[in-house]
Amino acid sequence: MKTLFWRNGYLYLLDQRYLPHRCRYLRCTTYLDVARAIKEMAVRGAPAIGIAAAYGLVLAAKSAVKYDRERQIKVVRKAAEVLRSTRPTAVNLFWGIERVLRRIEGSNYGNSPIYKVALEEVEAMVREDIEVNRRIGEHGASLLPDRCVVMTYCNAGALATAGYGTALGVIRTAVEKRKKVMVIVPETRPKLQGARLTAFELDAEGIEYRVITDNMVPYVMNSGIVSCVIVGADRVLARSGHVINKIGTLGLAIAANYFNVPFYVAAPMSSFDFERSVDEVKIEERPEEEVLKFGRFRIAPKSARALNPAFDVTPPELITAVITEHGIYSPRELMDLRDKRR
Amino acid sequence: MKTLFWRNGYLYLLDQRYLPHRCRYLRCTTYLDVARAIKEMAVRGAPAIGIAAAYGLVLAAKSAVKYDRERQIKVVRKAAEVLRSTRPTAVNLFWGIERVLRRIEGSNYGNSPIYKVALEEVEAMVREDIEVNRRIGEHGASLLPDRCVVMTYCNAGALATAGYGTALGVIRTAVEKRKKVMVIVPETRPKLQGARLTAFELDAEGIEYRVITDNMVPYVMNSGIVSCVIVGADRVLARSGHVINKIGTLGLAIAANYFNVPFYVAAPMSSFDFERSVDEVKIEERPEEEVLKFGRFRIAPKSARALNPAFDVTPPELITAVITEHGIYSPRELMDLRDKRR
Repeated sequence: MKTLFWRNGYLYLLDQRYLPHRCRYLRCTTYLDVARAIKEMAVRGAPAIGIAAAYGLVLAAKSAVKYDRERQIKVVRKAAEVLRSTRPTAVNLFWGIERVLRRIEGSNYGNSPIYKVALEEVEAMVREDIEVNRRIGEHGASLLPDRCVVMTYCNAGALATAGYGTALGVIRTAVEKRKKVMVIVPETRPKLQGARLTAFELDAEGIEYRVITDNMVPYVMNSGIVSCVIVGADRVLARSGHVINKIGTLGLAIAANYFNVPFYVAAPMSSFDFERSVDEVKIEERPEEEVLKFGRFRIAPKSARALNPAFDVTPPELITAVITEHGIYSPRELMDLRDKRR
Repeated sequence: MKTLFWRNGYLYLLDQRYLPHRCRYLRCTTYLDVARAIKEMAVRGAPAIGIAAAYGLVLAAKSAVKYDRERQIKVVRKAAEVLRSTRPTAVNLFWGIERVLRRIEGSNYGNSPIYKVALEEVEAMVREDIEVNRRIGEHGASLLPDRCVVMTYCNAGALATAGYGTALGVIRTAVEKRKKVMVIVPETRPKLQGARLTAFELDAEGIEYRVITDNMVPYVMNSGIVSCVIVGADRVLARSGHVINKIGTLGLAIAANYFNVPFYVAAPMSSFDFERSVDEVKIEERPEEEVLKFGRFRIAPKSARALNPAFDVTPPELITAVITEHGIYSPRELMDLRDKRR
């Protein structure tokens, strides 16, 4: 089962809103379909939305194939604008879009139609993403004892990437190396990516796990069973070593620090931001209804109001190490990776 | 609207499983009805279940009114056994039962039927509980600035007591004193007592609040708006200063400590345990389904397993002070309260 794929000129996204109960693919025929799918979280996970947005540009270029080169590029730039506005926090979205724009704005592809060049670039990104995740898995697996209990968070698995996963990729690799891993899966309110998606992936792999509510994290750590925490990232701020990730990550990091549990972030270079500081990144606020309702069922009183920040910021002093495709780094030395950007 | 009341020989409990959407009372005609209501959390909150169990003994005594005194007491003792087994953690349950048993096993009530004596005792407990909450409110309100944002947890309000509330009682008193209080309400998974019950009470009082998911707690504290945290308690271990409360309380305490936010526990003497140490208290494990389902809707894959501890233990080093009806105490000096037990 693939998170997303291209077939016969269209993008197909596994609609993650219906998991784990139904595997339904969403066919995107225009870049606007892709923009909606990202905004409404049919596809989510920083690397996955970067690639989905890049495919969105392919759809835009394809729709303009009858025009001249200049006009085609104009159409793609317009689509890039719309796709960039879907979600503000995960940096991969901007990275994926930039990479396609840079490729088609270059002049080294002769007479090939722009959309074909764009498609080649995105397909390279997909292959690279899976390869990068496997390398993250190799590096990260070395950190896990032969028998261990790993706590992850949200979903940083195959469903959050082009395949394999970052934090879950580390767990997958460890299991492939015959380590015995049990996974603690916080449900991750309000969208329940832990209970729905991470549980779904672990189930499919036959890896043992237990779902907990997010507020059980300190209780479980206090019991002494947790070997380490591994989470993904929506944006790694290389200059300061802060990591922006799904709301609640900060709570895991603070609890891990309190109970002396190592706290690892697994993230590809495509999630790195080498320019901005914490204050320059917008933390997405999502609709209050996501907190006040559960599916269609309303939890709170009719007139209740809610806060719904989608991400939080974990400071470097709470991060033991960042696992990248180039190896394991202290959050204080991430600028060393600057020259390895693509 | 009352949490529970006695009318025409029966106990009526506001069935909290249907709140905030429906106000439905559950009529208990036997002590077994009460035991089921406690077990299934139709009534919850440490002080409220203590009083409900005590009413259960009245129902048991009433059912035995035709027998001689000795046999009546035997029937009540049997009921006490069953009621004690409903939930293991909150100490008020045992306190409420003991208090009624002590009263009816005494010999100072002439020829009154046992159930009447028991009923008088429980009605005194109800009046005292409300009075005690008001005193907690007075003491606690002195800790709140004139304009403040208070984070509470779960429901420690009128619905968790005979009326008025402990942690919410402090907020109520502060508002009565014309302080301007905004309340942050973590939803409190898996049973959502925050989003359902605390929000319901604040709504009814016209006190401003915002619901958050439990994993947003550190984000909100990091924003700098939270003046203090006030939570209730299911059991205060006076010897060591540990506080047992709804699962997730420990996470709030660790985050509050990290962000230098004062962390208060509001609890009546009926929640105090002057004998036991942490290791001697059983932390209730509830059905996995409560985590894996949301109402009738299943979240996780079919074969998923979950953990579901109902409480956690917060150590004294994370507690700024304990607010009782006798004043405000450091968690290190709780044994000073020993002589004030009833």
